[in-house]
Amino acid sequence: MVAIQDLYDEKFSHCYGCGKSNPEGNQLKSYVGNGETLARFLPKPEQTGGVPEHAYGGLIASLFDCHGAASAAAFDYEATTGSLGENSQLKRYVTASLKVEFLRPTPMGEEIMIRGKCRSIDGRKVWVDMEISVGGDVCAKAEMLAIQLKQQTS
Amino acid sequence: MVAIQDLYDEKFSHCYGCGKSNPEGNQLKSYVGNGETLARFLPKPEQTGGVPEHAYGGLIASLFDCHGAASAAAFDYEATTGSLGENSQLKRYVTASLKVEFLRPTPMGEEIMIRGKCRSIDGRKVWVDMEISVGGDVCAKAEMLAIQLKQQTS
Repeated sequence: MVAIQDLYDEKFSHCYGCGKSNPEGNQLKSYVGNGETLARFLPKPEQTGGVPEHAYGGLIASLFDCHGAASAAAFDYEATTGSLGENSQLKRYVTASLKVEFLRPTPMGEEIMIRGKCRSIDGRKVWVDMEISVGGDVCAKAEMLAIQLKQQTS
Repeated sequence: MVAIQDLYDEKFSHCYGCGKSNPEGNQLKSYVGNGETLARFLPKPEQTGGVPEHAYGGLIASLFDCHGAASAAAFDYEATTGSLGENSQLKRYVTASLKVEFLRPTPMGEEIMIRGKCRSIDGRKVWVDMEISVGGDVCAKAEMLAIQLKQQTS
């Protein structure tokens, strides 16, 4: 199964949050299947919030941002072209707006699950609903409007 | 002039985005004056977005998150107690919701300005409006609802 971010054109693969060409970054990998997207992430020890036991809010927002943009690209591809494969040429999406609701602290030391679902697609716009959970507890929810970049390299 | 985050109780000062007790983090410093809050941040070279010339979206959200929570604490203090000083005992605020609108890419290699204004205060809730600009161009806007933590150490 191929990660959505690994299908980004090399030109667009430098994101600190999820780019394969950014060795110092978080390298988030998102996957699509059964109509939804999924990513897993274990926070680095220094990515704490105000108290050492919880992840910092900016990390939660960052995971939603990268996962949402990847989800938009995958949902668009599957709606217009077919199942994603290792030779799929994705269109790159960027975030227009992101709203995050923090429902409870996200604990450190455990794998974070990020799930995404497509709410709707309208031309170059994709709306994605997401949630973050740890051990089955939903810690945060988000909604994103992602827009397809006009300039593509190929 | 004292940074708002430097007034957080030691127990709450471990945030990767802005905590004085997190040496590997971004160490964002926010200041209050003339009814608004201000912070400046120069992205690290690796904090790029999809393309190397722009900052990644998660960084933008993270700057808003830390600056907004600091702004809420400062606005609450100044509304209830008086001008912030180096001995002020702040109440710690956390983010309940954060909505970010990305208006244009945020360039790398230049200082980012983050401004915050108080929209309203209602008991333990503070609403903060923010914007991020580089060289006078507004790159992103945000609105936050921050809530005062109930448990305080002192």
